[in-house]
Amino acid sequence: MIKQSAIALTLLLLHSVSAHVSPEGFYTEWFNHNGLPTMVEIESKLADCKSEYQHIEIYKTTTFGMMMIIDDVIMLTQRDNAAYHEMIAHVPMIAHPNPKRVLVVGGGDGGTLREVLKHGGVEEVVLCEIDQKVIDLSIEYFPEFKSAFEDPRTKIVTEDAAKYVKTQVNSFDVICVDSTDPFGPGEVLFQEPFYKDLKEALTDNGIAVTQSEPMYLYTDLIEKLYKQNSRLFNYANYYFTLVPTYPSGNIGFSFCSKKYDAFENMDENRIAKLKNLRYYNAELHKASFVLPQFLKERLTK
Amino acid sequence: MIKQSAIALTLLLLHSVSAHVSPEGFYTEWFNHNGLPTMVEIESKLADCKSEYQHIEIYKTTTFGMMMIIDDVIMLTQRDNAAYHEMIAHVPMIAHPNPKRVLVVGGGDGGTLREVLKHGGVEEVVLCEIDQKVIDLSIEYFPEFKSAFEDPRTKIVTEDAAKYVKTQVNSFDVICVDSTDPFGPGEVLFQEPFYKDLKEALTDNGIAVTQSEPMYLYTDLIEKLYKQNSRLFNYANYYFTLVPTYPSGNIGFSFCSKKYDAFENMDENRIAKLKNLRYYNAELHKASFVLPQFLKERLTK
Repeated sequence: MIKQSAIALTLLLLHSVSAHVSPEGFYTEWFNHNGLPTMVEIESKLADCKSEYQHIEIYKTTTFGMMMIIDDVIMLTQRDNAAYHEMIAHVPMIAHPNPKRVLVVGGGDGGTLREVLKHGGVEEVVLCEIDQKVIDLSIEYFPEFKSAFEDPRTKIVTEDAAKYVKTQVNSFDVICVDSTDPFGPGEVLFQEPFYKDLKEALTDNGIAVTQSEPMYLYTDLIEKLYKQNSRLFNYANYYFTLVPTYPSGNIGFSFCSKKYDAFENMDENRIAKLKNLRYYNAELHKASFVLPQFLKERLTK
Repeated sequence: MIKQSAIALTLLLLHSVSAHVSPEGFYTEWFNHNGLPTMVEIESKLADCKSEYQHIEIYKTTTFGMMMIIDDVIMLTQRDNAAYHEMIAHVPMIAHPNPKRVLVVGGGDGGTLREVLKHGGVEEVVLCEIDQKVIDLSIEYFPEFKSAFEDPRTKIVTEDAAKYVKTQVNSFDVICVDSTDPFGPGEVLFQEPFYKDLKEALTDNGIAVTQSEPMYLYTDLIEKLYKQNSRLFNYANYYFTLVPTYPSGNIGFSFCSKKYDAFENMDENRIAKLKNLRYYNAELHKASFVLPQFLKERLTK
């Protein structure tokens, strides 16, 4: 009995010191869970790295391939990241008639970068990622993104993105803000001063899209961003995509455009040239802006 | 030390005998989880009932209101069930120009019934639910559905739905199959003989929709149903809705129609008369049929 109890205590202690991984082999994202934590079955932990800025972990999951965690939040898995990366990249890239210079804010994993580079007319993509360690670990464990970092059109800037954007004027046709959540260091990326800087950094017909959280769990934030962006930009919308390993299974983006609406430049020929699409297509580009009634009613100017 | 260990052992035993509820107060749906179990924070358990057919539990959650579990699977919560019930009901009801007789298969909670009854032209809705206990517990804990059971147009049949449908010929304008998952007793509801019976039970211009699981986790099943229904019906499609407390956050339906496609009868006036919509609207009716590329490629005849 004592021996059994000792084992039980050990298990319980193990459980509490590594509260994200259960003894049964499930990773749980507890961060700001809103009553709905996200749980993914894992096979093993492959990397654990405390960089200068954050805690980065790599797990092998049982059904979603490799998974990257940053500061206890699931960033991406191999199986479902296309839904996120294709939608943050191709929606603004296709909404713009001829994007040449593109900025990716954050997104050190390279997934957004890879999708942006699929567009033939692109001359330069600046990836502004503060943490070189994210890039290094992504190259090691997500080999499918490696070639994007080696593309001659890619320029990597390891700087604080909020500061970098402030220095840019009339510089980018498209900006994709592939950020973390509105807490801690990421908080400034959800506030009006940053959106004003994005507007300045865009060319006169530029388009920015920003990670803007899932619709059921962050309805207030989405409404706030919508109202703010409606003042700053000619076109402001929210659109969404389905990512099973994100809280509640979906996530959305704020679409902020100076001159073009999300659809007027849609060109089937350009879309047909995009290779290896798993999520994005022309019809879905439009459908992803159509919102459930509870959210539609909130997004009024 | 021994006392601590004894407490730890007790906690661990409690954990294993009630493996769905953690000591920290989270309910986990483990059933056929595909590497992505669903977890919902609970406040308390309000009912636990072993009926003649199944194990029914009611929990109060922290952020999703009341939650009903049947045989260890989350059936509905107060906060997000509208996304499911409005989409299983209004899509076929609006696709049909004038549905008068409607059958709801399963759906003992009353949520689908309530949505169907919002349509003014409806003369009779048969709710065929095998388990009276589901109805009783729903009326007790989900009072928002109570009036649907009391509506004079509602007829409750407590029978095995597969057997009941087999007896019906040319009888219903719309059938909503609000079923559980394709395992155990629910399995027959996902097989061809049942779909043939649905076809027989429908009028010549009838429409059936059937719960057909989430797109990432049941892609093979969805493809199988699509190919099968394309042979049986003039129009066969898959459409989806966003339900945070279902596995992967979405769920879809097979649309099976003898005469009308999903959109040709859409009437803005009829939609405008539907009261208290939280999810469905006219644009979303269309957008919910637009599928991500990985699924679109699979759904070809």
